[in-house]
Amino acid sequence: MNVLPKAVVLVSGGMDSCVVAAMARESYRPAFLHASYGQRTESRERQSFDAISDFYRVTERLAVNLTHFAQIGGSALTDARLAVPEGEPGSPVSSTGIPITYVPFRNAHFLSVAVSWAEVIGASAIFIGAVAEDSSGYPDCRSEYYRVFEELARVGTRPETRIRIETPVIGMKKSEIVRRGIELGAPLELTWSCYQSEDAACGVCDSCRLRLRAFEEAGAADPIPYKVRIAR
Amino acid sequence: MNVLPKAVVLVSGGMDSCVVAAMARESYRPAFLHASYGQRTESRERQSFDAISDFYRVTERLAVNLTHFAQIGGSALTDARLAVPEGEPGSPVSSTGIPITYVPFRNAHFLSVAVSWAEVIGASAIFIGAVAEDSSGYPDCRSEYYRVFEELARVGTRPETRIRIETPVIGMKKSEIVRRGIELGAPLELTWSCYQSEDAACGVCDSCRLRLRAFEEAGAADPIPYKVRIAR
Repeated sequence: MNVLPKAVVLVSGGMDSCVVAAMARESYRPAFLHASYGQRTESRERQSFDAISDFYRVTERLAVNLTHFAQIGGSALTDARLAVPEGEPGSPVSSTGIPITYVPFRNAHFLSVAVSWAEVIGASAIFIGAVAEDSSGYPDCRSEYYRVFEELARVGTRPETRIRIETPVIGMKKSEIVRRGIELGAPLELTWSCYQSEDAACGVCDSCRLRLRAFEEAGAADPIPYKVRIAR
Repeated sequence: MNVLPKAVVLVSGGMDSCVVAAMARESYRPAFLHASYGQRTESRERQSFDAISDFYRVTERLAVNLTHFAQIGGSALTDARLAVPEGEPGSPVSSTGIPITYVPFRNAHFLSVAVSWAEVIGASAIFIGAVAEDSSGYPDCRSEYYRVFEELARVGTRPETRIRIETPVIGMKKSEIVRRGIELGAPLELTWSCYQSEDAACGVCDSCRLRLRAFEEAGAADPIPYKVRIAR
């Protein structure tokens, strides 16, 4: 008998959302949602999503393909004409410090899918692995943003629908997320973070560098294969 | 020389958004956005979008296909197993009065696409033809909802991005929208509102009934073909 409430967990295939999935399982029956959006590594991330879903034996799954991001462009992740930076993590490229890997308003699309699905399947919470600190510098990864989205879900759905937006790692350092994942037995070996490679992680994009630094600070070995591991 | 600011206008192919487009043109350079979502009449609505765009000679256009709504289901508009009601307009089917044609949280998806595109092309406003009064009873057609979305766009985009969400017909009766459209010379003959037919409008779904009543109250003839025109 399982009496836990249901939650939609956004599982990108990356490390943060894998740890969030492990946390969500402690008090919810999770339904896993994956959204690809024409990013360079979408098939590798989808493969990680499937593997993590299998690992946790989650049967309620939805994988959507948001093809319109490729039409909209404006990000190095979805526009092949823009190069993925290989400098220091979070290196700013706009005058206001937003990285060129920022996909305009991306998380609103993901959360909109999550809210629609949550309303249909009767889930009372949505978990998302946004990280504000020690991270990307993306404007849609801040706590304030998720408070506003929760309000939007309240006013924009059926009167009886109540959906919490949970961001359990938003204030954590990446190294704390690694430690928490290890404590919870999260399958970090199945995750993928690299922005540009699909066979072995490049080791030099912002996302790889942040991940490698996080494992180093956590005193753990990153179990996925890399082409290059930059010494710091 | 055209110095007007740019605005993204959500043009569904229906009557309300066509009139909104006519209004937006008075103070903005419009870029037209169309989103299909697996609704029954999507190809007919897309045809209306193209015709309205041609009429206004709008060259900046984006038509996206949000295929995930069909996966999510939960609405008579996107789930072939659920019938479109043919009763009185706005006839409630849930205990809280939300019609079965409600697509869960739909407008958040549309607005998210609009905000992403607006940020990329440098538009400072988004126009949407939501109607709260005398209309559908959908929760995402109320003023409060759009105020919250504007706040979401503020906190979730680049610091320099400012996007207003404009809902110029939200407080209007459908008959006023018809009158305003006629005054502005909006091409109402190119629009499509029917929920279920693509050749001639069915005349009996909620959307047809609301439209026919609006033209009748406005003292005008609806220029599109109908299979049936219900006398009231």
